[in-house]
Amino acid sequence: MTNIKIKETQAFIDLVGRAANVASKKPDTIRSGIMVNAKENKIAVRTMNESVSVQVDAIDITETEGEIAFVVPAKLFLDMIKKLPKGDVELVIEDKKMDIVVGKSSYGISTYAVDEFPQAVAYEEGTIFQVEGPTFAESLSAVVYACSESEARPILTGVHILSNGKYLTLIATDSVRLAANAVPIIAPTEEFKNVVVPKTSVNELVTLIADQKEVEFSISQNQLSLKTEGITFTTRLLDGTFPDVTKLIPSEFESEVVLHKDELLKALDRSKTALGPKEKIARFSVVEGTLSTLTIEGKTEITKIFEELFVDEAGVGISLKLNVHYLMNSLNSMSSKKVRLQFGGVTKPMLVRPEVEGATQFGLLLPVR
Amino acid sequence: MTNIKIKETQAFIDLVGRAANVASKKPDTIRSGIMVNAKENKIAVRTMNESVSVQVDAIDITETEGEIAFVVPAKLFLDMIKKLPKGDVELVIEDKKMDIVVGKSSYGISTYAVDEFPQAVAYEEGTIFQVEGPTFAESLSAVVYACSESEARPILTGVHILSNGKYLTLIATDSVRLAANAVPIIAPTEEFKNVVVPKTSVNELVTLIADQKEVEFSISQNQLSLKTEGITFTTRLLDGTFPDVTKLIPSEFESEVVLHKDELLKALDRSKTALGPKEKIARFSVVEGTLSTLTIEGKTEITKIFEELFVDEAGVGISLKLNVHYLMNSLNSMSSKKVRLQFGGVTKPMLVRPEVEGATQFGLLLPVR
Repeated sequence: MTNIKIKETQAFIDLVGRAANVASKKPDTIRSGIMVNAKENKIAVRTMNESVSVQVDAIDITETEGEIAFVVPAKLFLDMIKKLPKGDVELVIEDKKMDIVVGKSSYGISTYAVDEFPQAVAYEEGTIFQVEGPTFAESLSAVVYACSESEARPILTGVHILSNGKYLTLIATDSVRLAANAVPIIAPTEEFKNVVVPKTSVNELVTLIADQKEVEFSISQNQLSLKTEGITFTTRLLDGTFPDVTKLIPSEFESEVVLHKDELLKALDRSKTALGPKEKIARFSVVEGTLSTLTIEGKTEITKIFEELFVDEAGVGISLKLNVHYLMNSLNSMSSKKVRLQFGGVTKPMLVRPEVEGATQFGLLLPVR
Repeated sequence: MTNIKIKETQAFIDLVGRAANVASKKPDTIRSGIMVNAKENKIAVRTMNESVSVQVDAIDITETEGEIAFVVPAKLFLDMIKKLPKGDVELVIEDKKMDIVVGKSSYGISTYAVDEFPQAVAYEEGTIFQVEGPTFAESLSAVVYACSESEARPILTGVHILSNGKYLTLIATDSVRLAANAVPIIAPTEEFKNVVVPKTSVNELVTLIADQKEVEFSISQNQLSLKTEGITFTTRLLDGTFPDVTKLIPSEFESEVVLHKDELLKALDRSKTALGPKEKIARFSVVEGTLSTLTIEGKTEITKIFEELFVDEAGVGISLKLNVHYLMNSLNSMSSKKVRLQFGGVTKPMLVRPEVEGATQFGLLLPVR
């Protein structure tokens, strides 16, 4: 029987909370657990899911006899320690169970066998690149919506990262739409491509680096690793070759219009509501005139929509069908006030770009026949 | 083709919102619609579900040619008008459809046949009683949790209202637990019993009267009616005889303890979390001593709980099993700082009462064998 006294309960809850977010959501499997390691007055936490492994070295504890490790179901453990009454928390670890004791409250919880918990994935040295945490986090968040939901082509369920030595290009596509962005690399580095991060790892990665000024990543054979402020993060990379999408992206356009993003989004939101959950397609037309407009038309068995929006630049007349939800996803990923819609042609891809100087971000949508 | 111009869009949205809440949740049936009636520059709305019928006479409109009525799907119509752009709203009603026009946006929606919409349930004169709206609303809300969820005995799915001429007694029970409350009647009235309001009607009724100082109800054969500020509300009453529960309620107790409600609730919440979704039963024991305590013990395959709470009054020792969720429901319906637990015996009902002078509210739980 070993006792661990937790000095700072809130810090411990935060630590477990961070780990519990990563732990596998499949209940009753050992990967749904977190391993807590107490040694030399410090508590470390280790957790993993199907893609990500996270180790956190963290808070001081007042008293531990020797070294002790235990594995508990992450979500249940977190829910329980979140609701503890005020007071010193003591963890009493026995053979196959642990008691959480605060004052007169005592909560027992069965533990998993420590030696059955998967080994942590170690940090691996490889190709190094450094980026600003917030910029990289925002850019990843802004493209991940376009990843494929289907396992038919597993490589498309991740975000493709390429380096030209100065910039990272981030690309996600489900083959009907595409999102792209670019992120400056802090110091010139090697060129690389085909680094594909599973979309399920992106959230944890973004949370981790969003407030880190500079972060250094290491790419090795099958994994992307990161060490920052006592946290070691690794994610597996997807196997396979990400398709070359450059030939998909038109460089000439039949028609271009500039609109207020929020006005367009509101009109699309109304259209989405009126079209209901089953119908996602509407007809978009650029109408030439003294004042050019963009119209949106659609219908279902019981509803009908018509929207007309003035546009800043007079575009050449064109009319095609687009997925309203996909266009909204694309617009929602952009933070500019205005956006430019570039129509490649009736059957060619259309691009959505933030209307700001030097924007590297864009979304691409294939028209629906 | 008839046009209705809506003068105050927000008031119209509120009006439709109130009605849409009542409309039946079964989609694609005419009862999921609301009937809008425009006449003499006023808009009236009518809606109903399986239990309740509501008519609201409301806002002025600027312009209507003659009288016009239409029936539209309530939820879809509400969602659409909530998202309209700013500007004057015009409803253009044709044979089987209606267009909502604001500036350059136009939204069509199919309408139901007006003559197929069920007749409104008329206000019926009957036994009259008057109560303070907020008091009655709170008391109804505080007992409705104990209504039965099962249709095995339909009469138990409602709240029983009895009058002794001076007080209304409200009772709800699913036969394992019970909630009761009393509400003063403003002017002496007739005695009555067996007025059983379906629990599905209680929410709408509570919303309607919560800010009405005095409300007058009329009970007729099968319905409870209410007219207030341009709104006519009727609910059907449940058929059958509500069981006499007075013999269930013990008047003598083996043991009584007084506790801080929030401390008890927090301990129960921790217990609930640790017991998980499948196990709802814990053992409650009053432990005699220089300082008496209430202990809570329970376990599942992977967890174990122990709580010990000091109590204000020394109770006689007793130990029995209770449903943690039910006890929480009962405590949550009470607004007092302290509560009194009254144990009738190991196999007899226990009562929960707010520990305040003259409290008429109580909860009753049957112990689990």
